[in-house]
Amino acid sequence: MSDKFARRMGTVHRSFIREILKVTADPEIISFAGGLPNPELFPVSAMDKASREVFAEIGSSALQYSTTEGDAGLRAIIAKRYEKRGLAVDPDSILVTTGSQQILDICAKVFLDRGDKVVIERPGYLGAIQAFSFFEPEFVTVSLEDDGPNLEELEAAFKDGAKCFYAVPNFQNPSGVSYSLEKRRQVAELLDRYGVLFVEDDPYGELRFMGDDLPSVYSFCKGESLLCGSFSKIAAPGFRLGWVVAGKVVYDKLVIAKQASDLHTSTVSQAIMRRYLETNDIEAHVSLIRERYGRQREAMVEMIGRYFPEGVTITAPEGGMFLWATLPENVSAMDLFDIAIKDKVAFVPGSPFYVDGSGENTLRLNFSNSDEARIEEGIKRLGKSIATMLK
Amino acid sequence: MSDKFARRMGTVHRSFIREILKVTADPEIISFAGGLPNPELFPVSAMDKASREVFAEIGSSALQYSTTEGDAGLRAIIAKRYEKRGLAVDPDSILVTTGSQQILDICAKVFLDRGDKVVIERPGYLGAIQAFSFFEPEFVTVSLEDDGPNLEELEAAFKDGAKCFYAVPNFQNPSGVSYSLEKRRQVAELLDRYGVLFVEDDPYGELRFMGDDLPSVYSFCKGESLLCGSFSKIAAPGFRLGWVVAGKVVYDKLVIAKQASDLHTSTVSQAIMRRYLETNDIEAHVSLIRERYGRQREAMVEMIGRYFPEGVTITAPEGGMFLWATLPENVSAMDLFDIAIKDKVAFVPGSPFYVDGSGENTLRLNFSNSDEARIEEGIKRLGKSIATMLK
Repeated sequence: MSDKFARRMGTVHRSFIREILKVTADPEIISFAGGLPNPELFPVSAMDKASREVFAEIGSSALQYSTTEGDAGLRAIIAKRYEKRGLAVDPDSILVTTGSQQILDICAKVFLDRGDKVVIERPGYLGAIQAFSFFEPEFVTVSLEDDGPNLEELEAAFKDGAKCFYAVPNFQNPSGVSYSLEKRRQVAELLDRYGVLFVEDDPYGELRFMGDDLPSVYSFCKGESLLCGSFSKIAAPGFRLGWVVAGKVVYDKLVIAKQASDLHTSTVSQAIMRRYLETNDIEAHVSLIRERYGRQREAMVEMIGRYFPEGVTITAPEGGMFLWATLPENVSAMDLFDIAIKDKVAFVPGSPFYVDGSGENTLRLNFSNSDEARIEEGIKRLGKSIATMLK
Repeated sequence: MSDKFARRMGTVHRSFIREILKVTADPEIISFAGGLPNPELFPVSAMDKASREVFAEIGSSALQYSTTEGDAGLRAIIAKRYEKRGLAVDPDSILVTTGSQQILDICAKVFLDRGDKVVIERPGYLGAIQAFSFFEPEFVTVSLEDDGPNLEELEAAFKDGAKCFYAVPNFQNPSGVSYSLEKRRQVAELLDRYGVLFVEDDPYGELRFMGDDLPSVYSFCKGESLLCGSFSKIAAPGFRLGWVVAGKVVYDKLVIAKQASDLHTSTVSQAIMRRYLETNDIEAHVSLIRERYGRQREAMVEMIGRYFPEGVTITAPEGGMFLWATLPENVSAMDLFDIAIKDKVAFVPGSPFYVDGSGENTLRLNFSNSDEARIEEGIKRLGKSIATMLK
C-alpha cells in the first residue's frame, strides 16, 4: 500500500502533542501537556440559550448549506470587535474558517509551492508546521528572544528570498513570548522592505493578564498581510470557529481554497456563536477568563520558584496559556517526560517545536487547564522529577 | 500580488455552481440549479431537543476540543447503520470529517502527487474536481453510461497507470445515473486486477425511490478502497458532518491529514447529531425524505414530458436529487441559461462537470429543493426557454 501514498506523506507526522494527550488520559496524572482552555469557564448555559433561540427562530436555515465566506452577521460582529480595539476591518474582508487551523491549511494551499521558503519562529507553533508541511516548503527558523524575533536573523531570512513569515506575536504557543511594540514596528518595516507576505496568528491576544495591549504587527504592515483570529480561546473551541482578514485579491483565492476544503464552516456553529455574541457580553466573559488564567499563571510561576531546582529558567508571559521552561544544557526533556509520567505529571517536551530537532532541554507548560491546587501539586511533582534528572 | 500565489492557483477556480447560486438569489426565479436538500424536511424540533440535552448533560465537554478521529458514539452508530444494510464496518475504521467535501481534500493530500492519474466519471462531481485540482493530478475521464462507466474506457485508463478511481455509484451528481449490480462487480474486479485505489462517494445511496438497494462497489473490492458517507442528505448539511471508512494503514494517514486541516470536526455538531440519532428513528425520517423526493422526481419527469420540446433526452434516476438533460447537438446550455434566467428559471449548465470542457448541450436539474407546484411552473418556463433556443 505504502507505494500509493503521495511523496509529502514521507515528511508529515501525527501531532506529537495529540499523541502525548493519549498517554496523559490517566486521571491521576496532572497534565500541563495539553493546550486546552479551562472548561469551567465555557458559557454553557448562555450557549444553550443561544442554541434554543437559533432553532426556534431560524431552525431550518441554520441546518442548511450556507456561503463559503461565512455568516454575514458573525463577520460584522468580528469587524466591530476589531474596531473597538482600534483596528478598522471591513466585514467583507473576513473569511470564517473551521477553526484557525484551517487558515493555515488554506494559506498553504494558496501560497506555497514545494521548496518555497517559509519563515517561522524558533520554537514555532506545531499546528502551523504540520499544516505547511503538507505543501513541502523549506522552513527557515528565526530565534525568538524575550521581546520577539531576532531581527538580524529575520532580515537575513527575508534577504534570502523568503516568501512568507508566519508568527504568533502575542503570548506565543509554545513559548508564551510577546513581541515588544518596537519589534512589532521593526518586523513590519522589514516585511515591507523585502515584500514578504505576513501571516499573523492571534488566538491569544485578548488573554492579557498584565501590561498594556499592543497593536498587531498587521496594523503596521503596508504590504500584503493576513490576520487570523479564533473563538476557541475566548468562547469555546468545540465550535471550530476561526477567521482570517485579508485584502481583496488574496481573499478571493482563500475562498476558492476554503470551498475545495469543506465547502463552508458549520452553519449551526456559526448561528449559535452569532446569537451568543448578540445576546451576551463577550467582553465581560473574556475579563473573567483573563482574571482566572492570570491567577493560574501566577500560581505556576510562584510554585516553579518554590519547587524547581536551580538552573531551570522560565519565560514569565503576560498572557495566553503557556509557560516555557529551559533545563540546564544537555538535560533531555524527553527523558524527563518518562520520569515525570511515573511521578504522575505531564508536559510537552520542546523539541517537536523545533523543525531542526534541537531544543532538547526545553519544555512547554500549560497553565490554563488546571486550578491553583493542581498547579501546586503538579509543579511539586515535576520539581521532584527534574531533581531526579539532575542528580 | 499575483506573483506570490502558488502555481496550483492557476488551475483552480471558484465553483461555477456557487457563482450561479448568487444569480439565482432572486426569489422570483425558480431554481433547479442548487443541490440543496428540502429544508421543510429538516428535523428542526428533534435537533432542538437533542441540542438541549447535549448542553444539559455534557455541556462543557461538547464545547471542548476533541479527538481527530471523531466522537466514538457517533462512529458506533454509523457502523451499526452499515451493519443493518449488510456491510460489516469496524467503528475504528471510521473517520468523522467536516462534511464529505473534506474527505476529498484529505484523500488528495494523502494520495496525490502532481501529475498522478485520477480517473473520474464523465460528467463528474464538481466538488471532487475542485478538491483534487489543488494537488494538480492529471484527470482521466471515463464516460458514464445508463448503467455505470464504460468498462473498456475504464480498463484502458487503469492499464495506463491510473492511481485512483473516484466514483459516485448511486444516483450520481450530476447525472443521476446508478451503476447496475453487474457493473459494480465488474468495476471492483478491474480495480483489483490493476491495483487501483478506489474512492466510493455515497451521499445519496439511501435516497432510493424505486428499485432495489444495491451493494456498494466497495463491498466487492478486495484491494484498497475507501467508502465515504454524509449526514447532509439524510439529516441536515448545516452540521458539516461526513465520514470515511478506510483500512488501518490508510486510516492513519488520513488522520494525519485531517489533523493538519482542521484538528477535528466540530464537537458541538457531532454531539447534537449523535444525540439526535440515539433518540430518534432516522430510518423513518429517511423514508419521509425518500417519499417526498420521489414525488418531486415523478413530477419533474412528468412535466418534462409535457413541456419540453422534442429532441431533449433525460436520465430518469431511481433516487438522489438530480436529473440530467441532454439538448440536441450544438445547442448550448450556457446560452440557454441566459434565456432561462430572463424567463425566471435556473439550472446548472453541464460543461463544468466535464474537465475537457465538453458537454455543452447538457444540463443538471435539481428536484429535491422544489415542491410539485414549483416544479410544474419551473419546467413549463424552462420548456419555453428551450423552445426559444430551438427556433
